[in-house]
Amino acid sequence: MNEDIREGEIAVTLPEKFDAGVYFIGRIRTPWTRRDQCPKNARGSDAACTIALDERYAAALDGVASCTHLVVLYFMHEARRDLLVQMPRHGERRGTFAIRSPVRPNPIAMSVVRLVRTEGTRLTVVGLDCLDVTPLIDIKPYFASVDSVPDAVVGWSKT
Amino acid sequence: MNEDIREGEIAVTLPEKFDAGVYFIGRIRTPWTRRDQCPKNARGSDAACTIALDERYAAALDGVASCTHLVVLYFMHEARRDLLVQMPRHGERRGTFAIRSPVRPNPIAMSVVRLVRTEGTRLTVVGLDCLDVTPLIDIKPYFASVDSVPDAVVGWSKT
Repeated sequence: MNEDIREGEIAVTLPEKFDAGVYFIGRIRTPWTRRDQCPKNARGSDAACTIALDERYAAALDGVASCTHLVVLYFMHEARRDLLVQMPRHGERRGTFAIRSPVRPNPIAMSVVRLVRTEGTRLTVVGLDCLDVTPLIDIKPYFASVDSVPDAVVGWSKT
Repeated sequence: MNEDIREGEIAVTLPEKFDAGVYFIGRIRTPWTRRDQCPKNARGSDAACTIALDERYAAALDGVASCTHLVVLYFMHEARRDLLVQMPRHGERRGTFAIRSPVRPNPIAMSVVRLVRTEGTRLTVVGLDCLDVTPLIDIKPYFASVDSVPDAVVGWSKT
């Protein structure tokens, strides 16, 4: 796995076995088919994306349409998983758990999205930044009471 | 899997195989060892909990101490995964993706926590509601710019 490490990066030998499994429960359709097309972060584009849930799980959407915002978990299945310290192309060396890079031991991304429309098992949302056909892992209601912290600070970041 | 379904609940036959695997990268230590002791949600207690990261991943914490808040993903490994519609003991029938129940196809919980202190691979945080020794999946910096939506509404909820 230790191919292509940049200077300053640190890789780890991952455990030999997984501890649990996940199902891909749908796909996320976005306008971006190459990584260099993706917006830098989820507020970098107001493009509408589509969450296409597998029909098998359709009944689980009951009540979702009443939410203005959702938490979406998805699997960055093309990302390597062994880097503990990363050197972004434009940026400084940081620990994996201090950044939102898809490269991490469990490449599960979390995005907060605005729900625009639901039609059957297709949800139109704004706020995703991932590649087209990224595997969907979970959809949750976003509760401002527990999920919103407007004054939170990431000290290393300028923004 | 279809044991113990309450009236009104809907279960699904899950796929035969998982699509991807996850590593348990640490454990979450909380004061709660039985489900009925856990707070109803993450703001239901200001108890300090400890994220105990495996030493293997220690280097990935570089920069985390500069964050006031973190996104924590963890695996609710005791939850069943096949319910699409659930009937909470005190509440109404809802689709799984409209609630934050641990019972879901991929029982990965997301909590926003306040970081109190870091000591080596142990992070003291406030804002968790899970059972003691729950497996840790991921730690991410919480960016108010993309993660905070103070006016988000969950229409079915009174609060």
